Amino acid sequence: MFKLYSYFRSSATYRVRIALNLKGLPYEVLPVHLLRNGGEQHQAAYSRLNPAQLVPALVDGDAVLSQSLAILEYLDEAHPSTPSLLPGDAIGRARVRALALTIACEIHPINNLRVLQYLKRSLNVPDNERDNWSRHWLAAGFDVLEQLLSENPATGRFCHGDSVTIADCCLVPQVFNARRINLPLDPYPTIRRIEAACLSLEAFQKAAPGAQPDAE
Amino acid sequence: MFKLYSYFRSSATYRVRIALNLKGLPYEVLPVHLLRNGGEQHQAAYSRLNPAQLVPALVDGDAVLSQSLAILEYLDEAHPSTPSLLPGDAIGRARVRALALTIACEIHPINNLRVLQYLKRSLNVPDNERDNWSRHWLAAGFDVLEQLLSENPATGRFCHGDSVTIADCCLVPQVFNARRINLPLDPYPTIRRIEAACLSLEAFQKAAPGAQPDAE
Repeated sequence: MFKLYSYFRSSATYRVRIALNLKGLPYEVLPVHLLRNGGEQHQAAYSRLNPAQLVPALVDGDAVLSQSLAILEYLDEAHPSTPSLLPGDAIGRARVRALALTIACEIHPINNLRVLQYLKRSLNVPDNERDNWSRHWLAAGFDVLEQLLSENPATGRFCHGDSVTIADCCLVPQVFNARRINLPLDPYPTIRRIEAACLSLEAFQKAAPGAQPDAE
Repeated sequence: MFKLYSYFRSSATYRVRIALNLKGLPYEVLPVHLLRNGGEQHQAAYSRLNPAQLVPALVDGDAVLSQSLAILEYLDEAHPSTPSLLPGDAIGRARVRALALTIACEIHPINNLRVLQYLKRSLNVPDNERDNWSRHWLAAGFDVLEQLLSENPATGRFCHGDSVTIADCCLVPQVFNARRINLPLDPYPTIRRIEAACLSLEAFQKAAPGAQPDAE
């Protein structure tokens, strides 16, 4: 049984929960509260496990895995008999990875908790300007994603064709974040359509923040 | 022949140049100047090609590939007979990808040009505090990387064993950036040792910013 160090609202962890559910792999959720006790991810017990002091971390036997996209690729390689999370052709895989990285590199890290904390504590950026910051980078990223998805015939029911891929595992948590910060989603009909298709699947429903044992 | 849309100082493009050189794949460099003319990456000719308006983009026949890590994986899959840029075992691949993503997600995007421009133009952050920002995130990321590299017996002459991987393709450009912003590198002996091993190879030397046709 896998052990997943998780925070219910962490979108990087949410990606991994979706993939584990899609693959039908059982896992134990070990909550790490990112805000309580000065941030439990900074405590010695966790930082020994994951020096980056970020969630998620996935424990598979003796191996401790970090970085959500590396974990998604690992799960897909180690359990190839379950539905694959990457398409069969190299160009398709490159497209899916680029979509996932557009979220994981260009949106998520810039709006991550520690960056927002730095803006507040070290640069004295007021709350409303921090909210503008979050919405700015999310909108910039979603503008690109909407174009990449709507203009490419390879897009299907999901981000790439009619099977769920790692791009969908990244997209749905990012849309969850967008709703939390009240980003208007009208300009993103393709993103909303794909989100709805994903959320019709039990694997996505069970991975949602509100369905977690540490949900508040 | 590949076409690589490149800016000499872009560390994401630098990663791809290293990989193309390691694989012995010929490519034509098409410079995109990120600072001139309001940023050539924003002009219609380029943004039609890559809606993200970021470098690199790699053209392989009819396919336009973006996101440097997706490109590295693509090159490795499409040209497996040349030295592989990923180890043979799933746990090793997960480690190498996590090291690469620690750079590509946790350091690079936060210090990227467009974020620094937003700090200056929208938040009026003075130059010295922007420099502190850049050094802060680079040091935070390098602290993690140094620990991951120095404490794991899988580290060899390079980030993982004695063969170059995508982790090394990401590390060397990030060290280049660190030197540019005068980050003290004394706390990172393992990173410096691996950088030196990489820079002894012609593939890395020819990919360096100073060796590019658009170098200034």
